[in-house]
Amino acid sequence: MEKNLEPGRHLLYMEWYTGGDVGLFMKMNKILFSGQSEYQRVDVFENPELGRVFSLDGITMTTEVDEFMYHEMLVHVPMFIHPNPKRVLVIGGGDGGSTREVLKHPSVEEVILCEIDPMVIEAARKYLPTTSVEFDNPKLKIVNENGAEYIKQFKDYFDVIIVDSTDPTAGEGGHLFTEDFYKACRDALTENGVFSAETEDPFYDRAWVGIAYNRIKNAFPVAKVYMGFMTTYPSGMWSYTFASKGLDPLKDFNPEKLKNFEKKDTLKYYNEEIHVASFALPTFVKKLIGVEK
Amino acid sequence: MEKNLEPGRHLLYMEWYTGGDVGLFMKMNKILFSGQSEYQRVDVFENPELGRVFSLDGITMTTEVDEFMYHEMLVHVPMFIHPNPKRVLVIGGGDGGSTREVLKHPSVEEVILCEIDPMVIEAARKYLPTTSVEFDNPKLKIVNENGAEYIKQFKDYFDVIIVDSTDPTAGEGGHLFTEDFYKACRDALTENGVFSAETEDPFYDRAWVGIAYNRIKNAFPVAKVYMGFMTTYPSGMWSYTFASKGLDPLKDFNPEKLKNFEKKDTLKYYNEEIHVASFALPTFVKKLIGVEK
Amino acid sequence: MEKNLEPGRHLLYMEWYTGGDVGLFMKMNKILFSGQSEYQRVDVFENPELGRVFSLDGITMTTEVDEFMYHEMLVHVPMFIHPNPKRVLVIGGGDGGSTREVLKHPSVEEVILCEIDPMVIEAARKYLPTTSVEFDNPKLKIVNENGAEYIKQFKDYFDVIIVDSTDPTAGEGGHLFTEDFYKACRDALTENGVFSAETEDPFYDRAWVGIAYNRIKNAFPVAKVYMGFMTTYPSGMWSYTFASKGLDPLKDFNPEKLKNFEKKDTLKYYNEEIHVASFALPTFVKKLIGVEK
Amino acid sequence: MEKNLEPGRHLLYMEWYTGGDVGLFMKMNKILFSGQSEYQRVDVFENPELGRVFSLDGITMTTEVDEFMYHEMLVHVPMFIHPNPKRVLVIGGGDGGSTREVLKHPSVEEVILCEIDPMVIEAARKYLPTTSVEFDNPKLKIVNENGAEYIKQFKDYFDVIIVDSTDPTAGEGGHLFTEDFYKACRDALTENGVFSAETEDPFYDRAWVGIAYNRIKNAFPVAKVYMGFMTTYPSGMWSYTFASKGLDPLKDFNPEKLKNFEKKDTLKYYNEEIHVASFALPTFVKKLIGVEK
Repeated sequence: MEKNLEPGRHLLYMEWYTGGDVGLFMKMNKILFSGQSEYQRVDVFENPELGRVFSLDGITMTTEVDEFMYHEMLVHVPMFIHPNPKRVLVIGGGDGGSTREVLKHPSVEEVILCEIDPMVIEAARKYLPTTSVEFDNPKLKIVNENGAEYIKQFKDYFDVIIVDSTDPTAGEGGHLFTEDFYKACRDALTENGVFSAETEDPFYDRAWVGIAYNRIKNAFPVAKVYMGFMTTYPSGMWSYTFASKGLDPLKDFNPEKLKNFEKKDTLKYYNEEIHVASFALPTFVKKLIGVEK
Repeated sequence: MEKNLEPGRHLLYMEWYTGGDVGLFMKMNKILFSGQSEYQRVDVFENPELGRVFSLDGITMTTEVDEFMYHEMLVHVPMFIHPNPKRVLVIGGGDGGSTREVLKHPSVEEVILCEIDPMVIEAARKYLPTTSVEFDNPKLKIVNENGAEYIKQFKDYFDVIIVDSTDPTAGEGGHLFTEDFYKACRDALTENGVFSAETEDPFYDRAWVGIAYNRIKNAFPVAKVYMGFMTTYPSGMWSYTFASKGLDPLKDFNPEKLKNFEKKDTLKYYNEEIHVASFALPTFVKKLIGVEK
Repeated sequence: MEKNLEPGRHLLYMEWYTGGDVGLFMKMNKILFSGQSEYQRVDVFENPELGRVFSLDGITMTTEVDEFMYHEMLVHVPMFIHPNPKRVLVIGGGDGGSTREVLKHPSVEEVILCEIDPMVIEAARKYLPTTSVEFDNPKLKIVNENGAEYIKQFKDYFDVIIVDSTDPTAGEGGHLFTEDFYKACRDALTENGVFSAETEDPFYDRAWVGIAYNRIKNAFPVAKVYMGFMTTYPSGMWSYTFASKGLDPLKDFNPEKLKNFEKKDTLKYYNEEIHVASFALPTFVKKLIGVEK
Repeated sequence: MEKNLEPGRHLLYMEWYTGGDVGLFMKMNKILFSGQSEYQRVDVFENPELGRVFSLDGITMTTEVDEFMYHEMLVHVPMFIHPNPKRVLVIGGGDGGSTREVLKHPSVEEVILCEIDPMVIEAARKYLPTTSVEFDNPKLKIVNENGAEYIKQFKDYFDVIIVDSTDPTAGEGGHLFTEDFYKACRDALTENGVFSAETEDPFYDRAWVGIAYNRIKNAFPVAKVYMGFMTTYPSGMWSYTFASKGLDPLKDFNPEKLKNFEKKDTLKYYNEEIHVASFALPTFVKKLIGVEK
């Protein structure tokens, strides 16, 4: 028995991982928002350990306490490879965490955040102030469009494209995992353009890392999987794929740029060693994606 | 895995019964309200099976689909014993279900609903229309007072008093289970006055039925436990105690009055046979409350 | 957090009720048996509140602490109507609780317990001593047969038949809910024969009470639904159907026989008033089964 | 509802992480063992996704599917730094996974597995064949002693000591996190001796990483934290601490030795790049343990 019942300790959020036999549970201290949009179920609640938790269709997208791990790794790995990123497109990422990280780079002049679901933007603006903090930045433009369609109008335009999607099986995430979409991203990039995408966990969702990586590799001259801890995502072991029209995520990495990065103090996860180390993959992941037999 | 995730099937409400080792869980389809008042935690959500569910401090108070069982048994047993009930007091019962049943009796001229917590009244008005349906009835007066204090100002005034409290261990329910309170209820009743109180379940909360019954028996000349099914309360087996200054719940029961009851069609649980049968107690309950050795 | 983790408080048994959106959870203190038979999944565990819990396919069959409610109501209602029951058949009921109650009647000479699944008998013998206590009684014969087939060989033989089945949708319970089966039961009974069957709960499983009652009514001259509390079954509100070739469960009830019952002290639920009261049905149940419009 | 109930999907194992507001749940397909030893509660069950799961006091120790991540990182990082490890002590680690990895090194002549709880050894031998596979290897000696006491008798004896403990707050894990214990380990090592210990997750259990690291640093001339994914441990982000009397885990790492490692094909996680990368720490971990302000 909960001897001293604290608010909300009788309300449980359960995220069933792929297969449905394992998952994470969180107590819901306070429920801030719970709605059904045209695309998906949207929930925001508070957990004593994790702060505000944002979920789509029962899948955790963001928790206030650990979102930095994911957003820093997704964003700064490509952003520090491009020599001078000015125009950046973030597809998905309606909580605002990725655009917040992008806007730490002083060279950036224009960021487009293409989030399909207006309810996500509204909920983030109202209930997730730590990720949506830059929503009123004049450099940022928010559009509510299907990213896979929206990208097609751009050719040779963006310096960096970041795909911050939901799972391929959740909500509207699936169309952001096709080879056609990756090719459209490539075409929308400038010559020095770089790209990153979240490519799922290689443990519970093991098929998707390989599928996504190989599709990206077919679309781009350079493609490499990198990894980072992400404590409230399934397995805690998250994969990302870096791609580019030519720049290499290790050879073209300049630690000096990061050392002089004005906002360095705001980075809680990403650093010089982590940039390099994140491309070292456990043997089973190498086999899973086919870079080792 | 939930193959086709329906809205809210990943959110679980868990009610730990006394002791904390058994309880009921409900999926939360939609969360309508979730707040913390001065007195308690208040939640209202939708469950596909049970409709709207209203809970205080993680204890289920009302579900749209089965509240009639509880409210009909708590209210009509005393109301049909009193020959001509005009003035009725309901203590607790902020969802409005008990006053709705009281107001079905055409003799009633004045009903006071004494609910300590204004947040309960507001939440009921807004989210529980089927129980709060009579909140604007001119015969009804709602006061937000502590029932155990409020009752003291009345002497020889009410024809019927109904105690529709939360559990003695939850929220502010405890002060509605003292012998002083029951005596104050007796004093507030007219000569023909009758009384009923919910007195918990005799399975998980077994101590309380006997305690409450014996305190009521000390305060009133007539006191008898009766029971009814209440499907979403712990054990599904609910006890009530009838008391009066003289009227007997069986000898003074007039089935004719019920046969001619204009609102009879609105009763889904209570009927002539049930009135009588509800005073037949399982042997272990008789022993628990001390009416059989 | 469970401050002082007690054994097994991290293991949860969850029984999803019909529909899957509501259910009971129990902590598993100690797991005594967990097996898969030819017919069903069989689990026996200990719960601090409920003692030993026995479940088939995730549906609670018996808990040590409340099984008396169910077994007494299922067995003694028909047994006290028959003037002199000698031969009794229990179909299902492999935990032994029903045959234990049957064997309290001194007139009984022969009891057949027809439980399809030998694993249930073995598990009960080993882990449920309080229900299987009479398994070695020389008057008892245990057969592992499909009850729906086994019954066909008997004509005009049994004084009492008791159907103590699992749910129609669980394990092998379905074939014990057909009209052909009920007719075979009728044919296997002697002229004064009486019959009872568990017929599910009228709240979550609402269709089955009416279906079972009406099929039994088609097979027998006399058929009446009665009810009792059953705290760990879905909704806590359990229905049984009494049937006979002519005897009436109320008119032919002789309270004297019960007053003189030698084993009366062992009855914890059933008594004279309860026998009569259990045939009083809530209005919604009368409508559900069609005895009231 | 689980439309097609598969065995055991109604039984849930819940691991409450530190604080008790977040945790992992796993369905229990089949329960193989559930016992209470002198020291702790021991459970072994099967999960469709994770294979056999072994837990102590409700804390997951090993799952068949991901234990390689933990055991390879705990064992091979120190084993590949020592130039010629002959005598190895594993403290804790009763499932056998660490000793299995140790025995892959051909130089090893003697391994002592000091597991305090005989029930863990027995359960592992019987139900965890993939980790306990080397229990009958003649080079291995299993002793059931308190590691913190047992270590005191050795001076200048072991080449490698591996602390494979449970959590400091679970079972008997606490005494393996004291500075005295770490000093006793140092004294039991030979001149070239190396050491590793699991030092918890820096997210939920954040205090312990810093405490353990700083105590180890006080006891040893060289001490460095390294990290790896461990998918079913809290947060999926696991820390280990390497220590030695002088050898450095990076400067003294010889990738050639690993390239020529005969059992290389059996390694599923650990490889040359991972060895180096595992010492790159996220910024917040550096701050947590005090190596960066």
